[in-house]
Amino acid sequence: MLRCLEERNFPYSSLRLLASSRSAGKQLKVKGQTLTVEALGPDSFRNIDLALFSAGGAVSREWAPLAAAAGAVVVDNSSAWRMDSQVPLVVPEVNPEDIGQYKNKGIIANPNCSTIQMVVVLKPLTSLAPLKRVVVSTYQSVSGTGQKAIDELRDQFKAIHEGRPPASAVYPYQIALNLIPQIDVFEENGYTKEEMKMINENSRFLL
Amino acid sequence: MLRCLEERNFPYSSLRLLASSRSAGKQLKVKGQTLTVEALGPDSFRNIDLALFSAGGAVSREWAPLAAAAGAVVVDNSSAWRMDSQVPLVVPEVNPEDIGQYKNKGIIANPNCSTIQMVVVLKPLTSLAPLKRVVVSTYQSVSGTGQKAIDELRDQFKAIHEGRPPASAVYPYQIALNLIPQIDVFEENGYTKEEMKMINENSRFLL
Repeated sequence: MLRCLEERNFPYSSLRLLASSRSAGKQLKVKGQTLTVEALGPDSFRNIDLALFSAGGAVSREWAPLAAAAGAVVVDNSSAWRMDSQVPLVVPEVNPEDIGQYKNKGIIANPNCSTIQMVVVLKPLTSLAPLKRVVVSTYQSVSGTGQKAIDELRDQFKAIHEGRPPASAVYPYQIALNLIPQIDVFEENGYTKEEMKMINENSRFLL
Repeated sequence: MLRCLEERNFPYSSLRLLASSRSAGKQLKVKGQTLTVEALGPDSFRNIDLALFSAGGAVSREWAPLAAAAGAVVVDNSSAWRMDSQVPLVVPEVNPEDIGQYKNKGIIANPNCSTIQMVVVLKPLTSLAPLKRVVVSTYQSVSGTGQKAIDELRDQFKAIHEGRPPASAVYPYQIALNLIPQIDVFEENGYTKEEMKMINENSRFLL
């Protein structure tokens, strides 16, 4: 996210980096400036215009309304608000006009990574003809599971390289030199949470 | 292949290992016996009952008829004979009764690895209802490309582990920590050779 702000030379007068107390004190370089990560707290969003959230659904559900109440416009990267009809679900290339609906709750959601790419293609098609069926296979990187998964992948490669048996904790199987055909947990209907996200979130754009 | 013969305790009175002159002289252990690889030549198939071929289409096209003429029944693992209507294309779990057709040319072909798995599922379905459409995504290992690809994968991981940039020669992109959504070359119709193999070979079972 910081790299994107740099690349786009996104205009801001000040930038605050918020995280859990575990990461507080960590220093990061942004546009040549060294910033210190602060622990998220009740006063974090005072005088903030724009709050970019990317710390998982639980954090967003709890803190996005507080940030919005403090006057910030929240752009949320998690799944917490995507299916809330009061919150616009926006892909800039697809429905930039919906951004204005942030006024309802002070929150703008963006979809799952797979949905974003799909609606860019599917939305223009719906204006030509109704879609009957979409068949999708996604090929996702371990980073989608989070830092722990990246570490597990790295550790497993190190183990293989050194002739030791690789240990699995984050994934139920070895992920190094492998591909696991399941993303997130299974829901009652037999689809995984990731699959249902894709179906549900797409429907907000296409139906 | 040797491991399978061992596991199944396949009955034979003698076993000869044939390869190109490059591999001749190499020693391999089979059922506790040390065998020396011999260079393939015009006399290789004398007194051979069963010849298992797995050295690519070009070798099979040239040598399978010679082996058959010498009296061997050839079981060919390559793509060379799969679409020859005189050669039975056999998956033992699907159409064992077609093996008898080996008498035409002395050759039995087996399908592409993806086709084998598919027809085991699809063939019984066709007896219940005609198939309208099959949507397939395959996730294939680098070993399908051959030993060179396995070596490239290993070398790239070593390079990454040692902080060097990985070099690509077999694949157009880095394959370590990656997935390349293309198998084999593109044909004129826009499908890859692997995709067309699957379509064509399936049709021999299902149409």
